[in-house]
Amino acid sequence: MGSENQIIKMAQAAKKASSQLSNVSTEEKNKVLRKMAEDLVAHSGYLMKENKKDLQAAARNRLSKAMIDRLTLDEKRITDMAKCLLDTANLKDPVGEVMQTIERPNGLLIKKVRTPIGVIGIIYESRPNVTSDCIGLCLKSGNAVILKGGKESLYSNKAIFKILRDSLKGSAVPQDAIHLLSSTDRQAVHILLGLDRYVDLIIPRGGEGLIEFVAKHSRISVIKHYKGICHVYVNDKANLEMARKICYNAKVQRPGVCNAMETMLVDRGVAEKFLPLMIAELQKAGVEIRGCPVTRQIIKSGVKRAIEKDWDTEYLDLILSVKVVDDLKGAIDHINVHGSHHSDAIVTEDQVQAEKFLKSVDSACLYVNASTRFTDGYEFGFGAEVGISTDKLHARGPMALEELTTYKYLVYGQGQIRQ
Amino acid sequence: MGSENQIIKMAQAAKKASSQLSNVSTEEKNKVLRKMAEDLVAHSGYLMKENKKDLQAAARNRLSKAMIDRLTLDEKRITDMAKCLLDTANLKDPVGEVMQTIERPNGLLIKKVRTPIGVIGIIYESRPNVTSDCIGLCLKSGNAVILKGGKESLYSNKAIFKILRDSLKGSAVPQDAIHLLSSTDRQAVHILLGLDRYVDLIIPRGGEGLIEFVAKHSRISVIKHYKGICHVYVNDKANLEMARKICYNAKVQRPGVCNAMETMLVDRGVAEKFLPLMIAELQKAGVEIRGCPVTRQIIKSGVKRAIEKDWDTEYLDLILSVKVVDDLKGAIDHINVHGSHHSDAIVTEDQVQAEKFLKSVDSACLYVNASTRFTDGYEFGFGAEVGISTDKLHARGPMALEELTTYKYLVYGQGQIRQ
Repeated sequence: MGSENQIIKMAQAAKKASSQLSNVSTEEKNKVLRKMAEDLVAHSGYLMKENKKDLQAAARNRLSKAMIDRLTLDEKRITDMAKCLLDTANLKDPVGEVMQTIERPNGLLIKKVRTPIGVIGIIYESRPNVTSDCIGLCLKSGNAVILKGGKESLYSNKAIFKILRDSLKGSAVPQDAIHLLSSTDRQAVHILLGLDRYVDLIIPRGGEGLIEFVAKHSRISVIKHYKGICHVYVNDKANLEMARKICYNAKVQRPGVCNAMETMLVDRGVAEKFLPLMIAELQKAGVEIRGCPVTRQIIKSGVKRAIEKDWDTEYLDLILSVKVVDDLKGAIDHINVHGSHHSDAIVTEDQVQAEKFLKSVDSACLYVNASTRFTDGYEFGFGAEVGISTDKLHARGPMALEELTTYKYLVYGQGQIRQ
Repeated sequence: MGSENQIIKMAQAAKKASSQLSNVSTEEKNKVLRKMAEDLVAHSGYLMKENKKDLQAAARNRLSKAMIDRLTLDEKRITDMAKCLLDTANLKDPVGEVMQTIERPNGLLIKKVRTPIGVIGIIYESRPNVTSDCIGLCLKSGNAVILKGGKESLYSNKAIFKILRDSLKGSAVPQDAIHLLSSTDRQAVHILLGLDRYVDLIIPRGGEGLIEFVAKHSRISVIKHYKGICHVYVNDKANLEMARKICYNAKVQRPGVCNAMETMLVDRGVAEKFLPLMIAELQKAGVEIRGCPVTRQIIKSGVKRAIEKDWDTEYLDLILSVKVVDDLKGAIDHINVHGSHHSDAIVTEDQVQAEKFLKSVDSACLYVNASTRFTDGYEFGFGAEVGISTDKLHARGPMALEELTTYKYLVYGQGQIRQ
């Protein structure tokens, strides 16, 4: 699948399927999701075999440890993928929900009703579970989907897609409701981005290059799932033991994901007390520290010098930038300039400073005294997620079933005309 | 204002002002809106004098009667503009509203809180009241705004803008929260569309040329306010007297607006009975009828032949396309192919057919037994409106205060870390 004609045909088929899909009952959709979950587990051997091809290529191409972690499928991760589909089946169907009812003085009754968006294109990199998560969420919310994964996970994605498309055979959901663009060149994406007649929404998940390309070329509405340059700011009124636990968790527990901390900001008032033990702990866990001059004055050895670019870098690895800031304002300004509007935390016992932080930092998810790692559809209680939107429109933060819907207004009259 | 440098400076100033504005209290914002309303009325002589320059140019350029109607400012319309600002002052401030509270089993408390979007660019054509309506709504929702009106209303827009910017002097709202791009060339728009560092949302309101241009060139999220090719479908189970009143109202009451009917679809089952009287009434009101072959068989004279292009045309004038369709499905298919996803109505006493119409037509606002002319922020009870979104994302249909906000998640913990 790669030529312009084939991609247009794919989008047309998806559009047609989306009309059919919008009329499929919740029960039928859930049946399909459960079948998909079963089929993934039943074919886990095949999946891991195909995944191995990607892992071998990753080793050849010397991908980072974090990247290879993201790419790997084992029995547990396949079970988790299946579980995500089952969880999606158990979630409330958002389609048809009456969001608002308005009665007007002239007798008009207005209902705001949730509907599917239509056809959604998702362009992503690396993690193969995204393929099944997104198919499940799009189907449940009544949308057709066109997926385009990264070349690193090509074999894994094709295998997952093949299994799930087969699951649709003989079901109420048309097979054309799901598509995988398996071409590895960017030209295919470029063609897709021009098909605003058939595709209603593009969700790019990935790094700067991908997001830039999509923002520049798309004629279709885009909700960006951009990198996570997440910060934890240890305030001068922080409980330092709590701060250590939060920072350690935010950096070390799973460094290869977008809600992991990339920069630790430490208030000047507690830097001398906080940094030595914290940095020792992080280094013990294998974290490379890149510090500002003040950090390097406090920790005399073993800390690399951070360069300007480090403040804007999503490492997705065991590397951490550390900066000592003068005060709350210094932290807020740093985050608003260098952050990616994803997830940022303050550790403090001072409620006034906490509220000021929440009000002034322009990010999707802001934490007081908790790890940034909680930015996640599951952790927020939404069930699964398509990803984390770093955009402000339509969906911000974890994007789940509701965010995959739109609405229309149904207006019931008895002959009303406008005066 | 036209050079690239000037436009960038304008956007930077707007961005800076938007941060300040997001902290201005509801009371201060309302005070400013009331002052603006007063100032508009106090300067109505000046406004009408400037508006006359636009009307003279419109006459010279032989604009249609409908266009000139849209352009005209008289005492009543100026009072209406002021009233809209007062109404906006009286509306509930959406900023800070807690939309959802989630308590997680691990003790995290998550609040989804409404916030302003930031800087909004609105590109529109024709009606000058849009200038004051949009300034009022953007300020109330805490957003800075950059306006770019059409060249037909240049003098009127400049006059309104001058009055309202003066109203901000000495208030808590920075003057840089509102801007007017008074350059008349499209190059200025092109520059604006590239400033995604400073501008968060672009709303184009207008015809095909403008929308196409914006969709093609914008690096910023766009919510299109496209033309209204609105339909009324007279079903075979319609109360024909009600149908006549609704169709007459939808076409004649104010033909120059986007929610006016452009195509009347008549079920074959009632065409012979319905059309003669209906068309006579419309013609008496000065409406030019362009009919399909069946319509012209029933009405032997005085009906022009509709060509294919007519079904896709927003006349904004006393012209109506008329088509006889075989059944409900014929009506739905015609609307989904030729409509602009704006507002469409069915007149019927048959609830099953009504529900099928509501479910199957892919438009923002769907009516049963009421005129399409009700698609309007006021009529829906939202107070004023920025316009009618024909897009599906973030905002669909009348776009008012709530639709001018986004949200962020505030997460309160006591040291929680991810397991």
